Amino acid sequence: MADSRFFANSGARRLADIAALTGATLINPAHGKREIGDVAPLDRAASHEISFLDNAKYVRSFTESNAGACFIREKYKDQAPPDMALLVTDDPYRCYALTAQQFYPFVPVVAEISPRAVIDPTATIGEGCSIGPGAFIGKQVVVGEKCIIGPNAVLHDGVEVGRDSRIGALSSLSHAVIGMRCIIHRGVHIGQDGFGFALSRDGHVKVPQLGRVVVGNDVEIGAGTCIDRGTGPDTMIGDGTKIDNLVQIGHNVQIGRGAVIVAQTGIAGSTRIGDGAVLGGQCGIAGHLTIGPGAKLAAQAGVMNDIPAGAAFGGSPAVSAKDWHRQNIAIRNLAERSRHHNE
Amino acid sequence: MADSRFFANSGARRLADIAALTGATLINPAHGKREIGDVAPLDRAASHEISFLDNAKYVRSFTESNAGACFIREKYKDQAPPDMALLVTDDPYRCYALTAQQFYPFVPVVAEISPRAVIDPTATIGEGCSIGPGAFIGKQVVVGEKCIIGPNAVLHDGVEVGRDSRIGALSSLSHAVIGMRCIIHRGVHIGQDGFGFALSRDGHVKVPQLGRVVVGNDVEIGAGTCIDRGTGPDTMIGDGTKIDNLVQIGHNVQIGRGAVIVAQTGIAGSTRIGDGAVLGGQCGIAGHLTIGPGAKLAAQAGVMNDIPAGAAFGGSPAVSAKDWHRQNIAIRNLAERSRHHNE
Amino acid sequence: MADSRFFANSGARRLADIAALTGATLINPAHGKREIGDVAPLDRAASHEISFLDNAKYVRSFTESNAGACFIREKYKDQAPPDMALLVTDDPYRCYALTAQQFYPFVPVVAEISPRAVIDPTATIGEGCSIGPGAFIGKQVVVGEKCIIGPNAVLHDGVEVGRDSRIGALSSLSHAVIGMRCIIHRGVHIGQDGFGFALSRDGHVKVPQLGRVVVGNDVEIGAGTCIDRGTGPDTMIGDGTKIDNLVQIGHNVQIGRGAVIVAQTGIAGSTRIGDGAVLGGQCGIAGHLTIGPGAKLAAQAGVMNDIPAGAAFGGSPAVSAKDWHRQNIAIRNLAERSRHHNE
Repeated sequence: MADSRFFANSGARRLADIAALTGATLINPAHGKREIGDVAPLDRAASHEISFLDNAKYVRSFTESNAGACFIREKYKDQAPPDMALLVTDDPYRCYALTAQQFYPFVPVVAEISPRAVIDPTATIGEGCSIGPGAFIGKQVVVGEKCIIGPNAVLHDGVEVGRDSRIGALSSLSHAVIGMRCIIHRGVHIGQDGFGFALSRDGHVKVPQLGRVVVGNDVEIGAGTCIDRGTGPDTMIGDGTKIDNLVQIGHNVQIGRGAVIVAQTGIAGSTRIGDGAVLGGQCGIAGHLTIGPGAKLAAQAGVMNDIPAGAAFGGSPAVSAKDWHRQNIAIRNLAERSRHHNE
Repeated sequence: MADSRFFANSGARRLADIAALTGATLINPAHGKREIGDVAPLDRAASHEISFLDNAKYVRSFTESNAGACFIREKYKDQAPPDMALLVTDDPYRCYALTAQQFYPFVPVVAEISPRAVIDPTATIGEGCSIGPGAFIGKQVVVGEKCIIGPNAVLHDGVEVGRDSRIGALSSLSHAVIGMRCIIHRGVHIGQDGFGFALSRDGHVKVPQLGRVVVGNDVEIGAGTCIDRGTGPDTMIGDGTKIDNLVQIGHNVQIGRGAVIVAQTGIAGSTRIGDGAVLGGQCGIAGHLTIGPGAKLAAQAGVMNDIPAGAAFGGSPAVSAKDWHRQNIAIRNLAERSRHHNE
Repeated sequence: MADSRFFANSGARRLADIAALTGATLINPAHGKREIGDVAPLDRAASHEISFLDNAKYVRSFTESNAGACFIREKYKDQAPPDMALLVTDDPYRCYALTAQQFYPFVPVVAEISPRAVIDPTATIGEGCSIGPGAFIGKQVVVGEKCIIGPNAVLHDGVEVGRDSRIGALSSLSHAVIGMRCIIHRGVHIGQDGFGFALSRDGHVKVPQLGRVVVGNDVEIGAGTCIDRGTGPDTMIGDGTKIDNLVQIGHNVQIGRGAVIVAQTGIAGSTRIGDGAVLGGQCGIAGHLTIGPGAKLAAQAGVMNDIPAGAAFGGSPAVSAKDWHRQNIAIRNLAERSRHHNE
C-alpha cells in the first residue's frame, strides 16, 4: 500500500472493469465481480490487490503470491496459486501500468497562480495553470492550458510550453519550444548555449548559438538533464521520447520519436538518434553521427561511428553486440592463458 | 590559514587537549603545553599549526615541514624535523579530521525563518530551524529541530526531514523521508519518478511510481545527485552512507550502511549495495544486481553481474581486480607484439 | 534566420567591413560592397547570408550552397559556386564566430535589481548590475560592475564575483572568488564541501574543507557542473578555460589557462590539468595526477597515471592514442580469429 502522505488511491474496482480497460482476458469470468483495491508486487500483494508476472525470474514469486489477481502470459497459467484470478495478455507489464494509472491517476492540475511567482505582464498563461511560488516567467513567454510550473522554475523570455505540460521545480528553460503533455522533471536545464568555441591559443572565441531547443509532444525529461540549444539549426527531441536523469544533449542533436535514453548518457553535437532507439545508461556518442532507428546500445557504450538501424551495439569503442561478446570472451581467455603461463 | 570571509577559527588550544580529543599519544609529554592555532597541510604549516602524515608519498614534505605538531604513524617518528611535536596514532587522517572539526566546528544553526520563504500552514517546523529566502515548504511537511533549509530549496507535500539535517540551496525533495543529521548538498533532487515505462511501439506507457525515498541518519548526498523514488517498494539509503556529486540512483535501489559512492556513478533500478561497499567514480551498475558488503569497485567499472562481499572489481565489463590487471597487461602485450610484427 | 523571439539581429553590414573585422581576404574586392544580413550554415544560407567551410566533410554543401559569401581556406576557392563571395583565411571557423558575434552581440546588461531579489545589506553590488527575481545574495558578498545574476541564483556569504560576469539562473556559489567576464551557466554549483572523509568502520569522519574555489577571468562553466572547494589549498580554474555541462571537479583540482573540458568529465581531487589541455566527454581522471599542458584525452578516457605535455591519450585505462588504436585493432583481430576458430 502506497504511503498516503504521497499517494491518493482512487478506490476499488471490479476485475471485469480492469479486464475491459486493459484488454486482458479474464480466464474465469466468475472472477469479474472480484473487487480489487490496489496494485502491488507479487511478493507483497494481498487478496484485494492485483500484480503482474513479466519476467521468468519471478515465476516462483508468482506461484507463492497471495495476490487476488495477476496479469500473466498464457503459458504461466498452470503455475498459479489456486485462488488467484488470472488475466491473460501478451504484455502484462503494460496492462499493469494501465491499471496502476487507474488506481493512482495523474494528479489533476489545481488552477492556482502563486502570488509569489514573478510573471512578466507580456507573458500569456493559459486557463487552468498552476504556477508555483518563486517561479519566474519572462517576457513574451506562452504557457498553454492546464500546465504546471513548479516552485522556483525559471522560464526565460520567449519560451513556449504546450498545454498539459509540467515543468518541475528548479528547472530552467530558454530559447525553447516545448510540446504538449510533456513532463520535465526537477533541475532540468534546457536551451543554454551549446559548447561552441573556435579554439585558439590566443583565446577560445565563443560562437554564438543561434538555434533553439524544440521538444515534441509526450516527451519526458529526467532530473538534472541538460539540453543545449542549436547553433543555428535547432536541437530537436521527437514525440514520445523518454529521457532519464543527468543526460547531456549537445547542440543540434536530433532525437527521433519514441526513443529511450537512460541516465547519464551523453550525446555530442549534431548527432542524430533514430526513432525508437534505446540508449543504455552512461553511453557516450560522439558528434556528427547517425544512430539508426531502433538501434540498441548497451550501457557505457562509446560510439565513434554510425550505427545501422535496428542494430545492437556495445563496448567502447562500440562494436556489434555479438562482436562485443566475442571480444570480452577473447580478452578473458587471453588473460587466463597468461596467468597459467606465469604459474 | 583559511580565508576568514568563509571560515571562522574557534581559537588556539593546547596539544595535550588535542591528544586527549583524538586519542593520539604525544611522544614528548612536555609538548602538551604547546599552543596550536590551526590545521594546515605539511608543506604550508607553520610552528603554531598541526598537520598529518598519512601517505608514504608525502614523507619528504613531513621531513621538511615547519609544522609545530603532526599526527603520524609510529614508524615515521625518526624522520621528523627536530622541533616538531609528534602525536602517534594508527589513523592520522582521522585524528586530523577530528582536530580540524574542533578548529572549524560545524556552523551552529541560527534559528531564523525568512519572511521570503513560503511555508504551507499545515507544515510542521521544529524548534531552532533556519529556513532561507525563497524556500518552499509544502503541505503536511515535517521538519525536525535545528534543521537548515537553504535558499530556494523545495520540499514538496508530505516530505519528512529529521532533526539536525541540512538541505542545501536549490535542492528539491518529494515522496521522501530523510533521517537525522543528514547533509544534502545543493542542487540535489530526491523523490522524482523513477524511469519506469512499459515500452511499446504504440507509445511508451508510464508506470506509476508508488514508493518513496527513505534516507537513514548521518547520510551525506553530494551536489547535483538524483535519487528516484521506488516503484512500490522504496528506494533506501542506509545510515552513514556518503554519496558524492552527480550520482544517479534509480528506483528501488537499496544502499546499506556506511557505503561510499564516488562522483558520477550510476546505479540502475532495484540493485542492492551492501554495507560499507566503496564505489569509485563513474561506475555503472546494471539493475537487479547485488553488490556484497565491503565490495570495492574501481572507477569506471561497468558491472553486469553480482559482486561478492569484500571483493575488489574493476573494468567494463567488471571482473576481479586481479583479472582486470591481467587483462590490461595482456592487451598491452598483444598490441605491442602486433606493432613489432608490423615493423 | 534565427527565431526573433530569442535573438535580435543587429542589422546588415558590407562584406568589406566583415573582411576588416575578421582579417580574412576578400578574393574579389568588388564584392566588398555586397550587403550581408546574417550568418547561416552552408546548406541553409541564402544570398544575403555568410557561411563558412571548415571541415572537408562539407565541401559538397559548399559547392551547392546559395550563400552570398563564405569564409574558406584558400585551397577550396576553385570549388565555389560562381556567384559566391569568398573570404580566404587560415581559420574560417574563428572568422565565422567573430562575424556571428557582430550580428548577434552579447545582450548588454540592463541595470535592474529585482525587488524580489534578497540582498543582504552588507553585500556590495557594482554599478550597472542586473539581479533577477528570487536571487539571494548573502552577507559581505561583492559583485563587480555590470554583472548579471540570474533568477533564483544563490550567492552565499562572502562570495566575490568580478565585473562583467554572468551567473545563470538557479546556480549557487559559496566559498568562491570568481574573475571577470566569466559565464557561469544555469544549475552550476560551486564551492560546496569536497568529498572528504576519514573512512572507518565506526563511521566515516567528515574532514572540514577549508579552502575555496578560485576561478580566473574569461572562464565559462556549463550547466549542471559541480566544482568542490579545496581542503585547505584552493580549487583553481585558470583564465580562459571552458568547461562544458555536468562536469565534476573535485577538491584541490588545479586547471590551467585555456583548457577545454567536455561534458560529463570527472576530475578527482588534487589533480592538475595543464594549460590548453583538451579533455573529451565523459573522461575520468583519478586523483593526485598531472595532465601536462596541451595534452589531449579522447572521450571516455580513464586516466590513472600522469600524462605528458602535448600527448594524446585514450582508452580506459588510458594509453597513448597510438597504443589505444593498436589495442583496439588487436582486440578486434583476436575476436575475429576466435570466431573463425569456432566456425
